[in-house]
Amino acid sequence: MPEEKLAHYAAMTETALERYFPQEPGYAERLTEACRYSLLAGGKRLRPALLLEFYRLCGGAPEDALPFACGLEMIHTYSLIHDDLPCMDDDDYRRGRLSNHKVYGEAVATLAGDALLNRAFEIMLAQTAVPADRAMAAAAYIGRCSGIFGMIGGQIEDLSLEGKTASESELLQMISKKTGALLRAACAGGCLLAGASRERRTAAEQYADALGLAFQIRDDLLDVIGDSAALGKATGSDEAKQKSTFVSLYGQEECQRRVDALTQRAVSAAGAFGDDGFLAALARQLARRDH
Amino acid sequence: MPEEKLAHYAAMTETALERYFPQEPGYAERLTEACRYSLLAGGKRLRPALLLEFYRLCGGAPEDALPFACGLEMIHTYSLIHDDLPCMDDDDYRRGRLSNHKVYGEAVATLAGDALLNRAFEIMLAQTAVPADRAMAAAAYIGRCSGIFGMIGGQIEDLSLEGKTASESELLQMISKKTGALLRAACAGGCLLAGASRERRTAAEQYADALGLAFQIRDDLLDVIGDSAALGKATGSDEAKQKSTFVSLYGQEECQRRVDALTQRAVSAAGAFGDDGFLAALARQLARRDH
Repeated sequence: MPEEKLAHYAAMTETALERYFPQEPGYAERLTEACRYSLLAGGKRLRPALLLEFYRLCGGAPEDALPFACGLEMIHTYSLIHDDLPCMDDDDYRRGRLSNHKVYGEAVATLAGDALLNRAFEIMLAQTAVPADRAMAAAAYIGRCSGIFGMIGGQIEDLSLEGKTASESELLQMISKKTGALLRAACAGGCLLAGASRERRTAAEQYADALGLAFQIRDDLLDVIGDSAALGKATGSDEAKQKSTFVSLYGQEECQRRVDALTQRAVSAAGAFGDDGFLAALARQLARRDH
Repeated sequence: MPEEKLAHYAAMTETALERYFPQEPGYAERLTEACRYSLLAGGKRLRPALLLEFYRLCGGAPEDALPFACGLEMIHTYSLIHDDLPCMDDDDYRRGRLSNHKVYGEAVATLAGDALLNRAFEIMLAQTAVPADRAMAAAAYIGRCSGIFGMIGGQIEDLSLEGKTASESELLQMISKKTGALLRAACAGGCLLAGASRERRTAAEQYADALGLAFQIRDDLLDVIGDSAALGKATGSDEAKQKSTFVSLYGQEECQRRVDALTQRAVSAAGAFGDDGFLAALARQLARRDH
């Protein structure tokens, strides 16, 4: 079962994240508090775990990759804070708690997002455990994945699809950037950081793409069939917002069939790493998750 | 006169900035357009010029430092876009044109800011002209200056001073972060990138601090005595917003006296670089600028 290892990586990440945003009275106190509110709100820490595991599978010691794992989590967190803002998705809740701007106000939430994105790069660049050339390559790759050609590009596409019926290819492209890109950053970023071969990086990207798409389809499915208590958020929100989803495109049964096929593809890709089972088990678990 | 060299650096920067945000129809077109709208809106390109000049004075070829000069300008630009948002300073105009969110809406403006910040680091990390260790050191320094311990920290302090009378030390601390930190990033960042000695970096920081404070005091002064047509924005806005400024603290005459003293300090610091006069002339010009 992957739970134990996932919990181990999550605990490592948690400790490091806490250290990167120390609570010092007086100094930008409210901003730090706002960053910590969203950053330390729990969550699976899936991206950090993937980066640390791929780094380990390519021969590195996970501790050395922590600044990159934490950087990724900060990027993920800032995107959620900005995504929840009234001018964007206007969500009052996130992971069962009030969203950042509902607690700290829009101005602080905007700056907290900025601070998290900025600090992500700052800590990746200030580290010394990984040689500079590999660190640069990994951070540049992560930056590309999180930027206008990756996650942010996906967000603008998502906005542009609002209120219209998206085609399959529009939906796939948007998801590949909005959710897929950061998972690629985690998996292939870990490989780059360890100086792994191009073959391994490609396999890592394949794993990430399959996992990311499966994850999103399952997400859309949970919005219809899920339990709002387990999810920590209201279900039916996609339908209420008239959003095009994989459920509206494929129907429920076909959705789970595709999730399973993608999971199988992820498991195959993991084979390239002589994986001891974590990556495969993780993919299988996500395919059946109920929150 | 520094105009010619400033124009030369500005032109180099302009061309590179344009290249970093190519207009490709279809791909995140509106977001790219929003980034370009603010990024290519003119401006003195002061920070890029300082970075390129300090890099040159420390023995480097300015062309090699362009990704860092452009990165700094992207960071500066994103901060202006987010600063103008309704939830922040709520400004409708910037440099005599409609602010970003007035043209593209708040959602796109928020994402454009994010995209600019992200791309700043992306291009600094993807470059290969400067060796990885120096590039990392410079980018990490720039990141620290632009983040929660620098510019963003200054922004949150600025927000917290709103509507109250700031003391001299509160005002000085806020300005040292909000405006000073990015100028330090430009001057000392250029030195770090060239692998200059600690002495030179310290002199660069002294130049930046003196220049930055003089710049801000002059800015506060211009808001009272300036010509709104030359400035491209309305004057008297500080008083209307009941903001504490150096004019309210020191009075007009003492303000210009301090600007001149700080300028003298900047000129002295520039001496450490066997400067051919550009840095000194630039400081003197900024001290008397009318826009």
